[in-house]
Amino acid sequence: MDVRALVFDVFGTVVDWRSGVAREVGRLLGDVVDAESFADAWRGRYVPSMDRVRHGEQPWTDLDGLHRASLDELLAEHGLPDTPEDVRAELVLSWRRLDPWPDSVPGLTRLKRRHVIASLSNGNVALLVDMAKYGGLPWDTVLSAELFRHYKPDPEVYLGAAELLSLAPEQLLMVAAHVDDLVAAHKCGLRTAYVHRPSERGPAVADADINVSALTDLADRLGA
Amino acid sequence: MDVRALVFDVFGTVVDWRSGVAREVGRLLGDVVDAESFADAWRGRYVPSMDRVRHGEQPWTDLDGLHRASLDELLAEHGLPDTPEDVRAELVLSWRRLDPWPDSVPGLTRLKRRHVIASLSNGNVALLVDMAKYGGLPWDTVLSAELFRHYKPDPEVYLGAAELLSLAPEQLLMVAAHVDDLVAAHKCGLRTAYVHRPSERGPAVADADINVSALTDLADRLGA
Repeated sequence: MDVRALVFDVFGTVVDWRSGVAREVGRLLGDVVDAESFADAWRGRYVPSMDRVRHGEQPWTDLDGLHRASLDELLAEHGLPDTPEDVRAELVLSWRRLDPWPDSVPGLTRLKRRHVIASLSNGNVALLVDMAKYGGLPWDTVLSAELFRHYKPDPEVYLGAAELLSLAPEQLLMVAAHVDDLVAAHKCGLRTAYVHRPSERGPAVADADINVSALTDLADRLGA
Repeated sequence: MDVRALVFDVFGTVVDWRSGVAREVGRLLGDVVDAESFADAWRGRYVPSMDRVRHGEQPWTDLDGLHRASLDELLAEHGLPDTPEDVRAELVLSWRRLDPWPDSVPGLTRLKRRHVIASLSNGNVALLVDMAKYGGLPWDTVLSAELFRHYKPDPEVYLGAAELLSLAPEQLLMVAAHVDDLVAAHKCGLRTAYVHRPSERGPAVADADINVSALTDLADRLGA
């Protein structure tokens, strides 16, 4: 493999969205909801909401916008229709205040020495920039579905990343804890690395070029 | 001023393009040309080449492509039409191997603590990512004219940066050593900081919100 750049899925792969969102839900809504179940239900609407955009049923909407719409639905379903506007806005920002997994910053820091490292997330640019500052993620640059106005797993995202980095698809390594992301990246010609994150509930091992259980392991594998 | 993000012109403002390009020209072409004059002549074609794109006379072409076309013209004019392809390709990459001014990395590192810092350059994304790795520029993210398919001073670049960062134009501070860049940013509602770089041959002081002579001075001014 002649990998020049590593592009990373972020939610679940680099940061722990569940505990971070649950913490903010608990802080902002209190005991009226079960915070972790609420976080799971919110995340449950993620793929269906992007699919409406991907299938042309809804014009381009960034992830902050999709998160806000699904939050409004969830609050209504939980009998909380009177949640104030400022609390809703703050809840949407909880997706920026997510802690990296313990191996993420050490692994990325090593990987950055010899490779370009970039996010390649469905999160919007502002979200990813704020999250990187919050967690100290040392990206060389932030790449986002927003730049291509297509959500993963649309091929435009993977091929768009290669084009912006002026690399051939096979010079990019897509790193993700989700098999569907890697399958789509592989179809576009990218190399793939599967990171097993138990809380993402994927298989222990996937059909990928590299299988690891931490970004520090990935640094070992790439001699970084 | 409620400035949340600082966006930087790069060539001349953050890095010393003249001596870096001259060094690579000398290394790759040898004594057959005066390296510094050649660098100046190459840079002299920069604005006219972007203007052809800006005025619709030429379809979108990234800066690597514009640099290559003007290099080919220059080599022909200098009686060097037989310069090999690999040397031409390497010369184009000289625009990525530019040293930061001595104050740039210390200043950016301080400014990054409390603000988002991003490039906002006519250089393409791959060029800016490679340049940042070469010089250790600690961008939170790379923003480029390429993302908007418009070159500065088109308003789409300044307003596009604000949109991607989810900020109002007045929450962005455009930092540049070139007055025309700041005038265009100001027209779009951005705040402006002029950095006097004598080799860029601009005035000592410009009509900007902030005037400084180094990025460490800018950090002082913003209390970073």
